[in-house]
Amino acid sequence: MKAVVCSEGKLEVAEIGAPQPGPGQVLLNVLRCGICGSDLHARVHCDELADLAAATGYDRFMRSDQRVVMGHEFCGEIVEYGPRCRKRWRPGTPVVALPIVRHERQPELTGLSVAAPGGYAEQVVVQEAMTFPVPNGLSSEHAALTEPMAVAWHAVRKGRVNSRQTAFVIGCGPIGLAVITMLRAAGVKTIVASDFSPRRRELAARCGADVVVDPGTESPWAAAPRKGRVIGVEDVLNLGFDAMDRLRRVPKLPWWYAFRLAHTLNAGPAGPAIFECVGVPGIIDQIITAAPPRSRVVVVGVCMETDSFRPAMAINKEIELRFAFGYDPGEFRDTLHMIADGKVDPAPLITGTVGLDGVDNAFAALASPEEHAKILVDPASAATAP
Amino acid sequence: MKAVVCSEGKLEVAEIGAPQPGPGQVLLNVLRCGICGSDLHARVHCDELADLAAATGYDRFMRSDQRVVMGHEFCGEIVEYGPRCRKRWRPGTPVVALPIVRHERQPELTGLSVAAPGGYAEQVVVQEAMTFPVPNGLSSEHAALTEPMAVAWHAVRKGRVNSRQTAFVIGCGPIGLAVITMLRAAGVKTIVASDFSPRRRELAARCGADVVVDPGTESPWAAAPRKGRVIGVEDVLNLGFDAMDRLRRVPKLPWWYAFRLAHTLNAGPAGPAIFECVGVPGIIDQIITAAPPRSRVVVVGVCMETDSFRPAMAINKEIELRFAFGYDPGEFRDTLHMIADGKVDPAPLITGTVGLDGVDNAFAALASPEEHAKILVDPASAATAP
Repeated sequence: MKAVVCSEGKLEVAEIGAPQPGPGQVLLNVLRCGICGSDLHARVHCDELADLAAATGYDRFMRSDQRVVMGHEFCGEIVEYGPRCRKRWRPGTPVVALPIVRHERQPELTGLSVAAPGGYAEQVVVQEAMTFPVPNGLSSEHAALTEPMAVAWHAVRKGRVNSRQTAFVIGCGPIGLAVITMLRAAGVKTIVASDFSPRRRELAARCGADVVVDPGTESPWAAAPRKGRVIGVEDVLNLGFDAMDRLRRVPKLPWWYAFRLAHTLNAGPAGPAIFECVGVPGIIDQIITAAPPRSRVVVVGVCMETDSFRPAMAINKEIELRFAFGYDPGEFRDTLHMIADGKVDPAPLITGTVGLDGVDNAFAALASPEEHAKILVDPASAATAP
Repeated sequence: MKAVVCSEGKLEVAEIGAPQPGPGQVLLNVLRCGICGSDLHARVHCDELADLAAATGYDRFMRSDQRVVMGHEFCGEIVEYGPRCRKRWRPGTPVVALPIVRHERQPELTGLSVAAPGGYAEQVVVQEAMTFPVPNGLSSEHAALTEPMAVAWHAVRKGRVNSRQTAFVIGCGPIGLAVITMLRAAGVKTIVASDFSPRRRELAARCGADVVVDPGTESPWAAAPRKGRVIGVEDVLNLGFDAMDRLRRVPKLPWWYAFRLAHTLNAGPAGPAIFECVGVPGIIDQIITAAPPRSRVVVVGVCMETDSFRPAMAINKEIELRFAFGYDPGEFRDTLHMIADGKVDPAPLITGTVGLDGVDNAFAALASPEEHAKILVDPASAATAP
């Protein structure tokens, strides 16, 4: 079959043997496969990523001297089953799957491990247990967005953001845009998005951001509507005092009850939820410095370098940093159905489609934020430019 | 009255005018005042702390060129009330209070602002609304520990640690010891404590740590009992697979229900709660690197310098960093009552007492971890060495 092979940082189309489905695995014809920002990064820096993965207990991440087929955001149709499958779906059924397969007890990251070739190819192998049929006649273009949208859905769930809280999305690349879309689906009423690129700000507004700012000329924190007003540490202290003063003035309120109440009142208003979708050194410290007290920061952008920040600033404001990675199968399945049910619309994210011969050009185009967000690969297409 | 005045990094006993209680304020005779690690830091680095506080919206933190009476962990007895007080307690009643007063709408940090002299003195002014009578005939020594123990109680609450989770306490200075005590009070069954100092490890065991390790010779993560076993990222992935495999094998389970279940199952076991009570550069990165996936790190130690860490490592493991600061009045009051009811015993923390003339020596003694944890100041004592 034809596939895009990555080796020593180069992408080239090659004729390779079709992957064979092992026990519990299924062979798919790839219909669409999205190009992910982490593929752009892995192409050049996979050895560092592999070292990091090894340090956290996964030692089979792709290396630059291997020949790897990348691509982990795919939609395909059933071709055939390997041994010991339940064979739930007929050949031709469109499905999506988590990009993870297992050989014996060894999990392999599909499209990021030489042992599990990915979706920049005519065919791909997935695990039956991690596969979901595409419902409602959903197009393969939109179904292929399940994976990146699931990353955003996981981040939004991790942020435990309630609908009255203000949400800030810092950085409007594909993941930032997906987060905005999912925040909107979660019913969050005030979404402030920030990006230096005019094109991405335009896409952020289309995805559902209420306020979109250029951080070069305007502070996202100042741009929040009044109800999401940024308060300082002194305001928090005063809120505590006011609550205590008020409680102590109620003549018949028992002491213990007053303090029990104060427990809640003095916790003060929760700060906003902030989604860090940039992933460059310095951005976490910038957010800690500028964010309101008691902000919850969900870090979705992957900064690969060592970063620096001031813990004392984070302590003074009681900032919370939640680092988000991936999703669970339930979130993946829910995301697919949210798209298929029309609860979220991934259309604004898709800005181009190429064939396998256009993947190298698409990677180049994605390096600039000014044109594209998500480019899909269609192995049946001959398009060489997005 | 006699007080210890800090100026240009020097501590000296001076005769100064007694503080006057303003509206809603109360004058106390100081019975005991604990020496806090942040006073040791503020003595030398208060200008940096003041800059940091100003950056977060509080611009009246003490400066080195001012003459400030420090001390914010005190127990005292009512002397007289300022105007507009409710005068609930008779003169002579022992009380504790949050170290915060308010002039008009301006909150001042008692013992850390020139406008609110602290407890290293014969008398101190507190806010009536923030004052609590000492119950059950509790000794003033133990009542004075309310403030630091409340810091620990707030941290434990912020960690949302449940009794079956393993808790790691990294660093067994006064705050680490208080955290251990409060974890024990919260019913946490497995507490692993770590400190380089033999003296502090001894105190950690007395405060209730189950396992106490010297990180110079042993890893705290390896020292956890089996149920608190450290698992790697690959184990987490396998847990997800196992859950999905198992669910897909149940013949009559509807698909949507299987995935709903998987949502929970695949979240896998929550990691442990880790309390960072050291506060030196590098410790957060050390913890992120060594901690199990899905750990929740409560940062209680205040690292004043810029620190560095690897966000990608935190992302791969989905680490959560919760920065904790202070407490609310409800937590302060609950801590007082937990001590008075015998639910927590602060006795192991107290390692010495000095008079006002001994404060300078006590600061010097506290610089080494090998002898003291908490030294109390008793203004009526003539002791010059702890």
